[in-house]
Amino acid sequence: MEYNFADAVKTLNPSAIREILKYAADPEVVSLSAGNPSPEAFPVAKIAEISAKVLAERPIDVLQYSTTEGYQPLRDSLASYLKEKHNIGRDFDNILITSGAQQAVELVAKVLCNRGDAVICEAPSFIGSLNSFRSLGGKLIGVPIESDGMDMEALEEALKANKNVKFIYTIPNFQNPSGITMSLEKRRRIYELAKKHGVVIVEDNPYGDLRFEGEDIPSIKSFDEDGIVVYAGSFSKVLAPGIRVGYAVAPKPLLQKMIVCKQGEDVHTSMWAQIICERFLSTTDFESHLESLRNLYRKKAQLMISLIEEHLVPSGITYAPTQGGLFVWCLLPDGVNMPEFCKRAVIDYKVAIVPGNAFLVDENDPCQNFRLNYSTPTDEAMRKGVERLGELAREVIR
Amino acid sequence: MEYNFADAVKTLNPSAIREILKYAADPEVVSLSAGNPSPEAFPVAKIAEISAKVLAERPIDVLQYSTTEGYQPLRDSLASYLKEKHNIGRDFDNILITSGAQQAVELVAKVLCNRGDAVICEAPSFIGSLNSFRSLGGKLIGVPIESDGMDMEALEEALKANKNVKFIYTIPNFQNPSGITMSLEKRRRIYELAKKHGVVIVEDNPYGDLRFEGEDIPSIKSFDEDGIVVYAGSFSKVLAPGIRVGYAVAPKPLLQKMIVCKQGEDVHTSMWAQIICERFLSTTDFESHLESLRNLYRKKAQLMISLIEEHLVPSGITYAPTQGGLFVWCLLPDGVNMPEFCKRAVIDYKVAIVPGNAFLVDENDPCQNFRLNYSTPTDEAMRKGVERLGELAREVIR
Repeated sequence: MEYNFADAVKTLNPSAIREILKYAADPEVVSLSAGNPSPEAFPVAKIAEISAKVLAERPIDVLQYSTTEGYQPLRDSLASYLKEKHNIGRDFDNILITSGAQQAVELVAKVLCNRGDAVICEAPSFIGSLNSFRSLGGKLIGVPIESDGMDMEALEEALKANKNVKFIYTIPNFQNPSGITMSLEKRRRIYELAKKHGVVIVEDNPYGDLRFEGEDIPSIKSFDEDGIVVYAGSFSKVLAPGIRVGYAVAPKPLLQKMIVCKQGEDVHTSMWAQIICERFLSTTDFESHLESLRNLYRKKAQLMISLIEEHLVPSGITYAPTQGGLFVWCLLPDGVNMPEFCKRAVIDYKVAIVPGNAFLVDENDPCQNFRLNYSTPTDEAMRKGVERLGELAREVIR
Repeated sequence: MEYNFADAVKTLNPSAIREILKYAADPEVVSLSAGNPSPEAFPVAKIAEISAKVLAERPIDVLQYSTTEGYQPLRDSLASYLKEKHNIGRDFDNILITSGAQQAVELVAKVLCNRGDAVICEAPSFIGSLNSFRSLGGKLIGVPIESDGMDMEALEEALKANKNVKFIYTIPNFQNPSGITMSLEKRRRIYELAKKHGVVIVEDNPYGDLRFEGEDIPSIKSFDEDGIVVYAGSFSKVLAPGIRVGYAVAPKPLLQKMIVCKQGEDVHTSMWAQIICERFLSTTDFESHLESLRNLYRKKAQLMISLIEEHLVPSGITYAPTQGGLFVWCLLPDGVNMPEFCKRAVIDYKVAIVPGNAFLVDENDPCQNFRLNYSTPTDEAMRKGVERLGELAREVIR
């Protein structure tokens, strides 16, 4: 049978990234292409302890249906935590627990976008979010990113030039894939622009707690007095991604629609996972756990940077400095064929990296970047991987 | 700020069901309105044992990101189980693990429906699915249900009369809310009609394993040689709903699009939950577990029927007999105001039941039905609840 797919889905294909990752399954290939937290980062013993306790003491809470809004003690703990630590949440806001921050972001698009409505995003940006907007018929408008975040003039242009812009999607801290952080000045500016144009901001912040250098910058949501920002947070990078728990803080009328749509997607998020998160937040020293993650990623980032300096910079490859998160965004010199470079890396040199065009609104736009990840590989794998990239660079560049 | 919602979402409101359920939070209220499995049905000790073992032996499998398609051993176990036991799955099919069967159903709508495309469903049908189709802009066409399933003449009419019908949604076994099962003859007929009109069938089968009387009837998917049926299955009613694991068996081209869309919704289903399901399927006697569930629900259904016979039938309330599942569908005599009856039940008599119009395509259509659940309440609560309903019936009917 010939399937007659929805228009928005017809053109939705597994991305170029997947083509590369197919090769990464080869056990000889060193992967610098993931976005996974380090396996060393998981508080395994504590999670096992909490799990055993709740399954012994109140198994029905874990196993029975619950409410779509989420496990109430987790919503309460998060509300206090976010208010105290980040000044996030006003009386007009409420919290929805989601199956990863991915779902929070997708739900905003679902409640706001008719097919063809515009969504402004950073270019480059996180491919998972871009695909979720595409799957709902959103028309993506990419705004270039500078070393301190989105180009605000281009953003203003985009807001003026496009009809039916429903929201601006941004990852302000250690953005995926670029590692770039938006300055405070630009955060204030994006807020003013969104307010002026009557457009929602979706602030996706999976990496904010993983700052290992410099000072925290207030979130955009922290100065939301007008109910225009949806904040998406996640336990994926600070506890464990396999459990799939994230959350949205949003103005109540928006959140109410997100709840009705979430009910139609998965009824509610896995209760075991929600209870693990709540008990972890409430019964451990969460701040010292975050500090240990920062120490781990600082070390791994420093190693990655020193390897890049040693093996890639001499061939003319440059990189964007970062102060947190999981990635380094590298730039090949002009004249080098980037997709070919990435393909040869995995096929001939057995090291998987992600071609930068995968993160663009249009994968066919010119791009000289590739993304390196330092959180997932062991130190040894990182050394081996960047050395191999260096060999390739010397072969094709100089 | 005034939020400019997507057209499909503007009209999507928490349903009448919720209005009633608000009162059900009152601890004095006996709830016959849920759709939860019996808490006695959960194999708590086995789940705790499996959880402890996997968290001790391979915590990274539980905590790290995984693939969108699902945990491979679970996909493999399910493929063998479904093939052997139900003759489900051909070479052209594949399996996707979803966050409950709800997600499987929603993903089909997402990959197939442009706004305004038609979806044919049973009238009445499961409100969660109807709302997920609505949230994606699907135009619902209700086909009346008879004692042996959908009215096939009305179905054929609907297929002829409506343009852009993308799929037929059916719950063939012990349907929610009516408890009705589609006959083998009608299953063959719906398949032929769908094939003739080039329309997909979504066969949602959460209750199929809970047959406590009579003979199993082959699923529609079991005679799918043309790749036109998507089968949605679930662990919610046979293991535990709070863990949120379901699955779709679908032709590969359709499944491929569902995978891309699922990636944009929640990346993958919670790994702990997937591993629990896989280990439960592979290391326990699943068939004898199902048999114990059937024994439990047979007893509870028999009690409910005897209570209905004793307290409601004398007042002229009738009911549809059922051979499995979780519900009994009752019918008030003409002239009794059904919504008022349900409202008075919860407010004046402290017993929550679900008004039948909540399950219709248009909640304003005339309806004399209400739904009773026998799986969630204790035997004592069931007795008390139906007795109270009997008092109300005697007051308002005769």
